[in-house]
Amino acid sequence: MSKILVFGHQNPDSDAIGSSAAFAYLAKEAYGLDTEAVALGRPNEETAFVLDYFGVKAPRVVESAKAEGVGTVILTDHNEFQQSISDIKDVTVYGVVDHHRVANFETANPLFMRLEPVGSASSIVYRMFKESNVAVPKELAGLMLSGLISDTLLLKSPTTHATDHQVAQELAELAGVNLEEYGLAMLKAGTNLASKSAETLIDIDAKTFELNGNNVRVAQVNTVDINEVLARQDEIEAAIENSRAANGYSDFVLMITDILNSNSEILALGSNMDKVEAAFNFTLENNHAFLAGAVSRKKQVVPQLTESFNG
Amino acid sequence: MSKILVFGHQNPDSDAIGSSAAFAYLAKEAYGLDTEAVALGRPNEETAFVLDYFGVKAPRVVESAKAEGVGTVILTDHNEFQQSISDIKDVTVYGVVDHHRVANFETANPLFMRLEPVGSASSIVYRMFKESNVAVPKELAGLMLSGLISDTLLLKSPTTHATDHQVAQELAELAGVNLEEYGLAMLKAGTNLASKSAETLIDIDAKTFELNGNNVRVAQVNTVDINEVLARQDEIEAAIENSRAANGYSDFVLMITDILNSNSEILALGSNMDKVEAAFNFTLENNHAFLAGAVSRKKQVVPQLTESFNG
Repeated sequence: MSKILVFGHQNPDSDAIGSSAAFAYLAKEAYGLDTEAVALGRPNEETAFVLDYFGVKAPRVVESAKAEGVGTVILTDHNEFQQSISDIKDVTVYGVVDHHRVANFETANPLFMRLEPVGSASSIVYRMFKESNVAVPKELAGLMLSGLISDTLLLKSPTTHATDHQVAQELAELAGVNLEEYGLAMLKAGTNLASKSAETLIDIDAKTFELNGNNVRVAQVNTVDINEVLARQDEIEAAIENSRAANGYSDFVLMITDILNSNSEILALGSNMDKVEAAFNFTLENNHAFLAGAVSRKKQVVPQLTESFNG
Repeated sequence: MSKILVFGHQNPDSDAIGSSAAFAYLAKEAYGLDTEAVALGRPNEETAFVLDYFGVKAPRVVESAKAEGVGTVILTDHNEFQQSISDIKDVTVYGVVDHHRVANFETANPLFMRLEPVGSASSIVYRMFKESNVAVPKELAGLMLSGLISDTLLLKSPTTHATDHQVAQELAELAGVNLEEYGLAMLKAGTNLASKSAETLIDIDAKTFELNGNNVRVAQVNTVDINEVLARQDEIEAAIENSRAANGYSDFVLMITDILNSNSEILALGSNMDKVEAAFNFTLENNHAFLAGAVSRKKQVVPQLTESFNG
């Protein structure tokens, strides 16, 4: 069988990078596939910290499968085509390992698909290592652990599954780190926003969702001080408006998430602010509003937007 | 947790009935879910033979989840919404166990999804029994075995996966039957077409596919004598034209499959016969043509039609 590229979503985060690296290894060892883990973008600062910590080289960034001479791919940590490789519609999807909703995903042929509503794609990949009785290399345990910590904000997000606590303990042991200490250091590495331009900031972790015909961009940044980010509101809003104009987003929703207290401020601009306000039952003042207890885009923001836009 | 309905696709076949009955049991035993296996139609003659053989009552036929007061469902042996329960878009899909391509499937939230490109959904459900260390009741082993035999025409179809042979052996042992003898008897029970009206015949095992904006109906009947079916061509064509008019199918493709020699005759009517001819590189004469070695709608017909319609 010819080479198969394995990758997470665009704007890769620690789970996208970790789950794809680990699954590419597992697929070689357990299923005999000729896989290569690649990425649809460069690591963010949090992920750079993770790769450095465990001595792993950043995966090669690819633009299209065809340019690599590859016709078959495996997706981790995503399934929606608009979050995937540019020519996803022209290649064969061999498999998917993911923990998101399914949408804008279609294949011509049957495939392997393993989705579970758990805290991270890495949690599922780790379970598959165990099912296949494949030993987990220390650095891949570290990467998968980081994916889980990143996606669940150290197991605090409501996306955390009951089984994820045990997964985190086992991976921390395999990776040789203290879960709490390593986790907080890793998350803090991703909150260094001061050095970033507003353009970069709104694109660190951003995904596009098609909601009832609207292209809605939902971005998230982690911080230890929401006010520090809001102090740059004018600059951020200008970047958002430029991004909307350039990419045709009907709306842009930015979650500014306080990783210490597990809350978010929502900053939103666009054509459907009535839908955004209805989604969260709040009123935007000066384009922003507080969303107590919200840390999960997937569970506390996107479903609410989906329902509101479809209503 | 409130009740979850588990069901296979409309026009249920032995795999739809077998995989849903077995998975509903497994989900109760292994995951503690309050499940009920139901069906989106009455068993065909082959499945009636299976249920009778293993002393299992036919599952209750349901029309909509809402009418049952149920808001959560699990799909087996299908994922495309147009093959599912009528109000599928209004309920929560908790999980899917399937062996088909993915299309016209979307959820608002993350879910359990277990897809493998193997011979039957029952093959996957059986694997999940083993993973969960749940003992398989004899009659459910019989139903899953029948699902696998039905979908692979006794392991002869190209959809048969390398692992399916072992699955069939194990299930036959658990069910207490001789694989070959039981399998042939079961398949023959589904070939009794003479007693059926043409309307019934074209609907025994029929699915609708949305191909580049066209609603294409692809039906399949099993026989031990293709000519016996072709002798009723006029009557069958009239039924097809009525069905097209009533349901808005752009095209109707009927596979008349010889289960003894593993070939099919294709009888096709509709607006895109050029696409159908291009798909199989044959010329329809008097609306039909021979497709040597073709027994699998999923692998030897639908992908070819998809590519041709998109071309």
